[in-house]
Amino acid sequence: MTNGINKKYRYNPKQLLSEKEIMHGIEQKNKNCVGQAITLIESNHPEHRKTADNILSKLITPNDTSIRIGITGSPGVGKSSFIESFGLLLCKKNYTVAVLTIDPSSGKSGGSILGDKTRMNELSKQENAFIRPTPSRGTLGGVARNTKEAILICEAAGFDVIIIETVGVGQSETKINEMVDFFLLLMLSGAGDELQGIKRGIMELADCIAITKADSGNELQAKKARLTFKNAIHLFPANANGWVPKVHICSSHENSGINTIWKTIESHRSTNLENGWISANRAKQNIFWMHQRIQEQLKTDFYGDKAISKAIIKYEKQVERDKISPFYAAEKILNLKL
Amino acid sequence: MTNGINKKYRYNPKQLLSEKEIMHGIEQKNKNCVGQAITLIESNHPEHRKTADNILSKLITPNDTSIRIGITGSPGVGKSSFIESFGLLLCKKNYTVAVLTIDPSSGKSGGSILGDKTRMNELSKQENAFIRPTPSRGTLGGVARNTKEAILICEAAGFDVIIIETVGVGQSETKINEMVDFFLLLMLSGAGDELQGIKRGIMELADCIAITKADSGNELQAKKARLTFKNAIHLFPANANGWVPKVHICSSHENSGINTIWKTIESHRSTNLENGWISANRAKQNIFWMHQRIQEQLKTDFYGDKAISKAIIKYEKQVERDKISPFYAAEKILNLKL
Repeated sequence: MTNGINKKYRYNPKQLLSEKEIMHGIEQKNKNCVGQAITLIESNHPEHRKTADNILSKLITPNDTSIRIGITGSPGVGKSSFIESFGLLLCKKNYTVAVLTIDPSSGKSGGSILGDKTRMNELSKQENAFIRPTPSRGTLGGVARNTKEAILICEAAGFDVIIIETVGVGQSETKINEMVDFFLLLMLSGAGDELQGIKRGIMELADCIAITKADSGNELQAKKARLTFKNAIHLFPANANGWVPKVHICSSHENSGINTIWKTIESHRSTNLENGWISANRAKQNIFWMHQRIQEQLKTDFYGDKAISKAIIKYEKQVERDKISPFYAAEKILNLKL
Repeated sequence: MTNGINKKYRYNPKQLLSEKEIMHGIEQKNKNCVGQAITLIESNHPEHRKTADNILSKLITPNDTSIRIGITGSPGVGKSSFIESFGLLLCKKNYTVAVLTIDPSSGKSGGSILGDKTRMNELSKQENAFIRPTPSRGTLGGVARNTKEAILICEAAGFDVIIIETVGVGQSETKINEMVDFFLLLMLSGAGDELQGIKRGIMELADCIAITKADSGNELQAKKARLTFKNAIHLFPANANGWVPKVHICSSHENSGINTIWKTIESHRSTNLENGWISANRAKQNIFWMHQRIQEQLKTDFYGDKAISKAIIKYEKQVERDKISPFYAAEKILNLKL
């Protein structure tokens, strides 16, 4: 991973590199070029979008060789600290790591208020690591497209492990598990209030639950929580690939338990590469996102109509008060389009 | 509840009663008329649909006085036996009970292969009970509309408790929790294989998990499972209404534990009627279904187009093999409509 040694590739938002230069830079594993390609993907400018599409169509993405990991947990669970420790471990093992964080707090500037690079101070300094926040403004499809295509760029640049970090509170975040091979849920041992934000149903999707902040003093409680989860998890509906979710405890502070989680991901990977699940699942995910995007646009077009949106407000009031059947109201609204 | 004593209201599919007669019959709590109104709802005949819409718009449905309960569990968990015991208990307590079963095995005839009335032999004989299978063929919106509107008919006829029974394996079934006040999940104690069918994420939606077949000999195992679930359930994300899901064991065979479940539902009801959640939730559910129905129709119209469906097949193949980005494919397909 060359970190923009060649000045030609140093990122300058005002002077975009050409398509050819970016393509070449990605092939050269130049992080600045990867960043610029992602900027093009995220841009609303039609020409940027066109260049992005050209780049995406020409890139040769290695198939199934990357590991796509989704990491979710409510605010305060210690996601950044975990990813910092986890990423550093992977760098030490000579893996290259791309971290794409979807940050709901990021504003219109496209930057992150939390400042991901500050949050992951040590990791961001690593030659083999690349950290990039994705603003979660806009539609589900928008966020998903940005993230999904950023994954492809990172893979084309040869990153071994792609981490998608989300908060797990909104719709955009919960659908991210449709984008990864392995879904890791971070939890605190003293569960309760801090779970309020997490969407119901997410827990049953996890391939691994990691109980964070199992530091000395807190370890007993963490171990107790692990036992409870372990007992509970075998009562959950099984995964399509037969994988039984694992429960681990870890401490980013004391750097313990992190390797066990990596070993779990490796074991998941080797089993599911062999039985063909990873490749089948990625194909299924691609088709899912194609239809998801189509349906989102259909909604946008329909609800964007002035007469329709006026009717929606009117009928919502009647439906809410049980004056008419919601299905009858839907019919009336749909008829406006004819 | 008069069971069609007046011959005029006896159900005869070949000679439908008039709108006025059906309306009057529903007001008189005549079960045959309730059945005929539901038949009109389920009919694909435009005139039947029109009559159904007229009836629905004129019916006075008592607000929030009914209790809508969703009951789900995988095949073999003992749903029918449970509903039989549960329904008989409610009849004994002088409640009137309507059971609407959504049966995925039902064929084109609209009847149930399993034969709901045979499955709930004793309950079907009760003056105060009404059992009606809804075929789950067709779209989610279709099944949902039939069920939702059947609930309104039953409520207008004065039924106190409306039970919606589903298998919990398909999309239609998992969305049914958007139609009820209380969601009861039936589980077996020896969990594992029998869970394969249940959709992931359903467990976290349950207001109560009842472990069935806790008969003598199996009681110890059931009690153990209850403890595990109880420990697990406080780790689940909290309900919007603050309700902490309960776990009970029961045996339909030995008729034990059924009353405890009813008391739980009563307690859920009294808390959530008082704080306004039931009424707010029903309003939210109505709006959900209105939009659900609109979006389903948008999809049907779009995908029904010949050129589109041809393009979908072509692009699915390319997307599946990672030849093009799913979002780029979606754009290409959407452009065909312009």
